[in-house]
Amino acid sequence: MINVSFMPANIIVKAEAGENLIEVARRGNVFIDAPCNGNLSCGKCKVKLLEGKVQTKNSHHIDDQERKAGYILACNSQVIEDIKVETFSSEESNLNGMKIEDLSGPRDKAIFERAKAQILDNDMKFYSYVEKDYLEIDEPTLDDNISDWDRIKRHIRNHLGYTKVFCRLPMLNKIPHLLRQGGFKVTITHIPRGEDKTTIVNMEMGDTTDRLYGVALDIGTTSVAACLVDLHEGKLIAKASAGNAQMKYGADVIHRIIYAGKRDGLERLNRAIVHETINPILNKMYQDANINKNEVAAFVAAGNTTMAHLLLGVSPDYLRLEPYIPAFSKAPFIKASELQLEANPETFLYILPSVASYVGGDITAGVLSSGIWTSEENVLFIDLGTNGEIVFGNKDYMVTCACSAGPAFEGGEISCGMRAASGAIDTIEINSDTLKPKLSIINDEKPKGICGSGIIDLIAEMLKTGIVDRRGKINKNIDNPRIRLDEYDIGEYVLAFKEEWNTEEDITITEIDIDNFIKAKGAVYSGVASLLHSLGMDFDVIDKVYIAGGIGNSLSIEKSIEIGLFPDIERAKFIYVGNSSLMGCYLTLMSEDARRKMEAFSKEMTYIELSNYPSYMDEFVSACFLPHTDIQRFPTIQKLLEKDSHKGCIIHGH
Amino acid sequence: MINVSFMPANIIVKAEAGENLIEVARRGNVFIDAPCNGNLSCGKCKVKLLEGKVQTKNSHHIDDQERKAGYILACNSQVIEDIKVETFSSEESNLNGMKIEDLSGPRDKAIFERAKAQILDNDMKFYSYVEKDYLEIDEPTLDDNISDWDRIKRHIRNHLGYTKVFCRLPMLNKIPHLLRQGGFKVTITHIPRGEDKTTIVNMEMGDTTDRLYGVALDIGTTSVAACLVDLHEGKLIAKASAGNAQMKYGADVIHRIIYAGKRDGLERLNRAIVHETINPILNKMYQDANINKNEVAAFVAAGNTTMAHLLLGVSPDYLRLEPYIPAFSKAPFIKASELQLEANPETFLYILPSVASYVGGDITAGVLSSGIWTSEENVLFIDLGTNGEIVFGNKDYMVTCACSAGPAFEGGEISCGMRAASGAIDTIEINSDTLKPKLSIINDEKPKGICGSGIIDLIAEMLKTGIVDRRGKINKNIDNPRIRLDEYDIGEYVLAFKEEWNTEEDITITEIDIDNFIKAKGAVYSGVASLLHSLGMDFDVIDKVYIAGGIGNSLSIEKSIEIGLFPDIERAKFIYVGNSSLMGCYLTLMSEDARRKMEAFSKEMTYIELSNYPSYMDEFVSACFLPHTDIQRFPTIQKLLEKDSHKGCIIHGH
Repeated sequence: MINVSFMPANIIVKAEAGENLIEVARRGNVFIDAPCNGNLSCGKCKVKLLEGKVQTKNSHHIDDQERKAGYILACNSQVIEDIKVETFSSEESNLNGMKIEDLSGPRDKAIFERAKAQILDNDMKFYSYVEKDYLEIDEPTLDDNISDWDRIKRHIRNHLGYTKVFCRLPMLNKIPHLLRQGGFKVTITHIPRGEDKTTIVNMEMGDTTDRLYGVALDIGTTSVAACLVDLHEGKLIAKASAGNAQMKYGADVIHRIIYAGKRDGLERLNRAIVHETINPILNKMYQDANINKNEVAAFVAAGNTTMAHLLLGVSPDYLRLEPYIPAFSKAPFIKASELQLEANPETFLYILPSVASYVGGDITAGVLSSGIWTSEENVLFIDLGTNGEIVFGNKDYMVTCACSAGPAFEGGEISCGMRAASGAIDTIEINSDTLKPKLSIINDEKPKGICGSGIIDLIAEMLKTGIVDRRGKINKNIDNPRIRLDEYDIGEYVLAFKEEWNTEEDITITEIDIDNFIKAKGAVYSGVASLLHSLGMDFDVIDKVYIAGGIGNSLSIEKSIEIGLFPDIERAKFIYVGNSSLMGCYLTLMSEDARRKMEAFSKEMTYIELSNYPSYMDEFVSACFLPHTDIQRFPTIQKLLEKDSHKGCIIHGH
Repeated sequence: MINVSFMPANIIVKAEAGENLIEVARRGNVFIDAPCNGNLSCGKCKVKLLEGKVQTKNSHHIDDQERKAGYILACNSQVIEDIKVETFSSEESNLNGMKIEDLSGPRDKAIFERAKAQILDNDMKFYSYVEKDYLEIDEPTLDDNISDWDRIKRHIRNHLGYTKVFCRLPMLNKIPHLLRQGGFKVTITHIPRGEDKTTIVNMEMGDTTDRLYGVALDIGTTSVAACLVDLHEGKLIAKASAGNAQMKYGADVIHRIIYAGKRDGLERLNRAIVHETINPILNKMYQDANINKNEVAAFVAAGNTTMAHLLLGVSPDYLRLEPYIPAFSKAPFIKASELQLEANPETFLYILPSVASYVGGDITAGVLSSGIWTSEENVLFIDLGTNGEIVFGNKDYMVTCACSAGPAFEGGEISCGMRAASGAIDTIEINSDTLKPKLSIINDEKPKGICGSGIIDLIAEMLKTGIVDRRGKINKNIDNPRIRLDEYDIGEYVLAFKEEWNTEEDITITEIDIDNFIKAKGAVYSGVASLLHSLGMDFDVIDKVYIAGGIGNSLSIEKSIEIGLFPDIERAKFIYVGNSSLMGCYLTLMSEDARRKMEAFSKEMTYIELSNYPSYMDEFVSACFLPHTDIQRFPTIQKLLEKDSHKGCIIHGH
């Protein structure tokens, strides 16, 4: 056996000779970022060899200087003897960047109010699937000596009207002592089904009807967000988010599905989402709000189909293989204790149903909260998450597709990419003379990387200033210290020199990054085009465009159109709706009426499988250009580029 | 810390100074029989001190010779230093005397056939609450790409007609791989509710509809019996029984309830019944029948109310305290995995409902199998178990009571008592001249003790031969080596000298034993009398008497009447129905119709609380005599005793 020491965590993991270094780290729960899951494509698993040797190969992600200093890619290295390595996962990634968010901002408030209006404007009521009732039960006597459970059922029948009352063993176990400690005055938490049935999930002494809480949870491939709701008052108490700890097993769903098929893979992915991501978020929220987990009796979650499978520990294998079949689209209610979720163990988790293998419950949630299902106008809904899903329609019909955009919008597979968290560069302007960028950074910290909205800005600015051509290639003729080539002749633009910001490394964007991003934006644009085409429609039918997803609050619609991510239509039609999946979970939690509506329309949505759609590949290839091969599709951008080209920038035609 | 070594098991348990030796043994899972649970009354926890000293008190259960040899009562001893003790639990008690029973005997067959006739004679059908169905499901294609779970539900809806199909998480987890391994040809095990709903609890590849098994389980305070049923063929496969491993925590329900209130007590009692009693029986049956536990999908159990509480780990505390309230009378269906029962983890356990705190599901089961609920005639049903419950009635009404008889009928609280297992003396005749007994022993082994039917025989014979008087006192004037006094002047009769049988100790019955047994039989007789009295009836209304319980197959009705256990009515009216609780579970398992009938009549039975019944105490005191204070109530016995008395025996009047 070989000893592998990981610094600075100082964790020693035993390994077999020939074992992959990233696998050794995973076994030891040492975090090494690996969004491409060992594909050699991202270069983020860089570690430094402090002692000993490994078997490794060269990679363009490691330059000569780094190689000499002992840097290797963990995914590309096999252990052959005892070694000591240094890992560079930031503190932020170790804690998944968990944060409790401020809800007092006007933008957040507006998004919540807008979502709630979907309920009120459609004559639906606010009442959760979980209720609390205070019972003052007659105490037993020798003449009235029915069992505790029969006594509770009798009281509920007489006072609440439910003729069939259920409970499960852990609840039954609590009854005898609790009834007597509470002097037969207790509050039950129960889940009614229909008029006559209900299931008791909790019992507390005294009148605690004013303490009933629920959690709404959006499980993204990259980020997880949650909000804690006071169901008694109908008030939002806390909102929190964190990175999905499954990131270490791959950045996108395909890599995760592959990992799930390995030995213990499914179990590890399930552990990562439940124990390393969701539960820490929940505990932090409960602590901040000073509530006990047993008071949390309602739980609504949404995620893409793969995330839903991994949450439940159900194999997602067949999602990846033709004919792409999920194990379930609508999961049964799941007991919190079965998943070891931090909530009342007897309560049930509701997971929003998915529409298809690659259009999950997060999209169902987004449709609910953004209100397409009730709109007279034609709405285009685009979720710029790790995958990229699109819905088009109105109250009469909805079509949907997924466009395999990958994780680029959330900073994945971009060398200096990161999600829209503290330290992310989120807006950029480039001075056309000096080519020096003006950055704004989330929380005004030192820059750590670029988030989705920043990359859109950056590419749009690089295009306008002629740093890149319409193919996304860097103009190597420009003589500016910010533009440089690596030893493999790959061009890059330096957004932030380490000397400028006193950071450890330069923050750059490479031609490979730009190429990845162009493919992602091309996938979305061609998805929208194909979806409309399948209906015999064109962009001019669109009345409104809702943009959702973790791309960041600073998303510039104008610049998104400039790079050809969105169609070139009237800017006023675009509305950024934020995390519409979380909002949909929130509404589902708050309103049984909304939940029923959502279940109904989710069954009616028509799924278009793009990989089968005849013209999709051509559309995609044409869209992998800035903004598009056919510039006439982007008339306002055509004018802009022509104007800029007069200032001396080079525009390459097709 | 003190080291306590238990031999011959060679188990060392750490103990605190001053800790009770029996508690130390329990912590180390060393079996020491303690039916009186440390009350100093039974003397069965005798152990031998091999090394070291303990703090102990004298007891009449240890004679001088034994004391010198190092014998002590474990319940009466506190550890003060390192010791080594020898325990004498026989191999039988270590294994709870588990045995697979022979079902081929005519008596067993007759009992099963008689029970089954209750179903057929009343136009009810045989079908269990669990069913199996073989499905050949359409394989998914790109055009038919609904999820696995939706596909299963669609197939079931189209082919079996259930519109609402449920499953739980562990089942969902199995679906994707299992469907594909089985080529979409699978067998489901499911539990229908009503016409339109069903819950899938298991799925297997291929057609396994011919392998569906169920277990019926009678959980007695002293003994546990089970049978394994082939639900496909409707055939009984195996029957097994064992002692209830809770015995070490007390022989009767009151001692168990008290123990349950101690720290970890409830958990230990639950462990003892599930892991040390039921699961070993089940595994043995499965092994013998060559079936896998996952094929066992139906599970029906009955026990007295306390046993039902302890099985589920629900506190029975309030059963013991006025107003004597159980936590439940009808338990919800419980998942096998929640109890860690050896069966398919997703299947549900059904527990027969109890009527009152001291009339449990075992009596409901007995009423079902013996057929009182359908009888035109007046039936008296007596369960001679650890407690002693009585039902009287016919198809129009039933009244019931419990009579606190204690464990004497199953050999409990009798110094040489044991349950009706191998080595038990079950019938006895005493030669009136030599006073030498003629014994018959179960399985013709060396005698180990006396079971209930043996004790009845013995007391009846001792009465007839004048060894005891009608108060149950031994005639100390008789000069015979079998009649002797201990140092405290307590008389005993030697049933088997160790020299006669080459056993370790003499088998005797003491005046204390006889006194205990008289109280037990008096409780039953006075219970019957009070129950009839409460209806304004007398013994002459009884058309039939069904005797159930673990008293043993060899029960002599004649001798039971001679000692005043049963009323002195026509002998032909008595029928021994064996373990009617197990039979009732068997019928409940086999027939949903029967289960529904049983649930209906269990709610209609009227419970009489004897402790409140005005004349009960007087009745009881009068009945604590052989056969009764008022000999005229037993006219045939009066004649018999008068005849015997002419032969020279002494009859004491009141």
